[in-house]
Amino acid sequence: MSVHENEEAVSIAVLGLGEMGAALAIALLDAGHSVTVWNRSAEKADALAGKGARRAETPGAAVGAADIVIVNVKGGAVAMELLGAAGASLAGRTVVDLTDGSTEQSRATGKLANELGADYLHGQIMTIAPAIGSPDAVIFYGGPQQVFERSEAVLRALGGRATFVSSDPGVAVLYGMAVHDIMWGLLNGFLHAAALLGNAGIRVGDFSQQVEPSLAALPTMFPMLANEIDRAEFATPFGALQHHLPSIDDLITESRARRIDVDLPTYTRNLVAEALAAGHGHDSYARLVERFGRG
Amino acid sequence: MSVHENEEAVSIAVLGLGEMGAALAIALLDAGHSVTVWNRSAEKADALAGKGARRAETPGAAVGAADIVIVNVKGGAVAMELLGAAGASLAGRTVVDLTDGSTEQSRATGKLANELGADYLHGQIMTIAPAIGSPDAVIFYGGPQQVFERSEAVLRALGGRATFVSSDPGVAVLYGMAVHDIMWGLLNGFLHAAALLGNAGIRVGDFSQQVEPSLAALPTMFPMLANEIDRAEFATPFGALQHHLPSIDDLITESRARRIDVDLPTYTRNLVAEALAAGHGHDSYARLVERFGRG
Repeated sequence: MSVHENEEAVSIAVLGLGEMGAALAIALLDAGHSVTVWNRSAEKADALAGKGARRAETPGAAVGAADIVIVNVKGGAVAMELLGAAGASLAGRTVVDLTDGSTEQSRATGKLANELGADYLHGQIMTIAPAIGSPDAVIFYGGPQQVFERSEAVLRALGGRATFVSSDPGVAVLYGMAVHDIMWGLLNGFLHAAALLGNAGIRVGDFSQQVEPSLAALPTMFPMLANEIDRAEFATPFGALQHHLPSIDDLITESRARRIDVDLPTYTRNLVAEALAAGHGHDSYARLVERFGRG
Repeated sequence: MSVHENEEAVSIAVLGLGEMGAALAIALLDAGHSVTVWNRSAEKADALAGKGARRAETPGAAVGAADIVIVNVKGGAVAMELLGAAGASLAGRTVVDLTDGSTEQSRATGKLANELGADYLHGQIMTIAPAIGSPDAVIFYGGPQQVFERSEAVLRALGGRATFVSSDPGVAVLYGMAVHDIMWGLLNGFLHAAALLGNAGIRVGDFSQQVEPSLAALPTMFPMLANEIDRAEFATPFGALQHHLPSIDDLITESRARRIDVDLPTYTRNLVAEALAAGHGHDSYARLVERFGRG
């Protein structure tokens, strides 16, 4: 029990006790809250009961005891089914939906929650289960700001970096997707580079350490890129798209000579070559946002 | 003139005065060195002469006056042609080749320089021309370590982060390619995310600011990934490849619904699906290094 002096213990229902849901329930118990759990297969709820949670037999029973209802299940359709099952017992409560899915799905779940008389926040969890409850764990929230603020102390028990991003719950989903989108790009680039280095007998750890300032500086590009994109002004006197092409060609040549993957650098080359053909050679790489904006 | 008390002014030749070569020459002049310049089209040398450089009529004449010979031209073939033209006058001097190209090309240029009696370093410039001379500018160097150390004070005038990476000049080239490889991956991911956000009417600058801790934390993945790759141990209890797939599918669904590009997330999905089909679902994303290692 570790409720801070200026915080109250709150009654919370947790619906869904997968790996992530169980971590959420435990973090809330650790923070001293009163937690009621429900899961479709009851044995997972038994495990939580051993740690101090109350077990409920139905979603409705779990919700009946709670100020805040946390939903973390496999997909928005399941989330809506559970809310529907809880029905009128949701009235006056706050639903915090931490279920992954699309922006439309989170908006639809929010609409249903509102129709049942509940407030609704969507939270997008940006960490793995063992990090839940840590001060650095990030969760993006969308929904009415005053609902977020009212719930914030509880939400910080789930992840110290509880970040309000929009009154639209869908935007929290979108922010999560956007961060993952960036992460996958970075991962693919890093692993392709690692294959190139490994082929040359270089330990990736040695490389990462030796070039650490260059790698650490990568995120410093973002504000400049964002500024170019938001202003839609891409002309640049230095580091323009036309100067990227020969470097990408060097990478393709080297990859081919070492018989490692050429598809990823060729993908990038095609993007750049297409922009050059469209007359954007003197523009920054950020100009490619227009290409990605087309389906 | 700003030679530090503990540094000597050194005689330096700069061969090649494109945008980057001119920036290199100016940084050396600013550091108080004696600089002789040569360029195929003479008017670029005239401009540098106005800033205190001596002009040479031929590469051989430029080299004759220099302890260090900096070569920054368009491609390794041109670099080799210039060294060949300078010929025996290179004996006893240090060639610092800052020309882009392949690892094989830098090794070949190094071999020629050595045959002509010169020491050889390859430097891979990791910045744009206006940043040359700044304390944060990164240049990776490969070649004999004692040659690097002997030249280090001069090299730091070109970029404060003069980083020795290997006795093999080709490795400096490879490090540069690897960092760019990572950067392109990150840029592509960021711009795809920006297209998604822009389509939803969100300013990319607002997003970047709100999610700054998540973006700043991205490079902290590298040491863990490097460790997995170097040990070739990919099994992970959390965040395994099988858990990436539904999130990538959410991104593809969202991209398709908004009519923005689906090729990039589909590329990533195919990589992950292929790894799952090969039985790697419980492994970390770093397992994909093996896929990139195949041509």
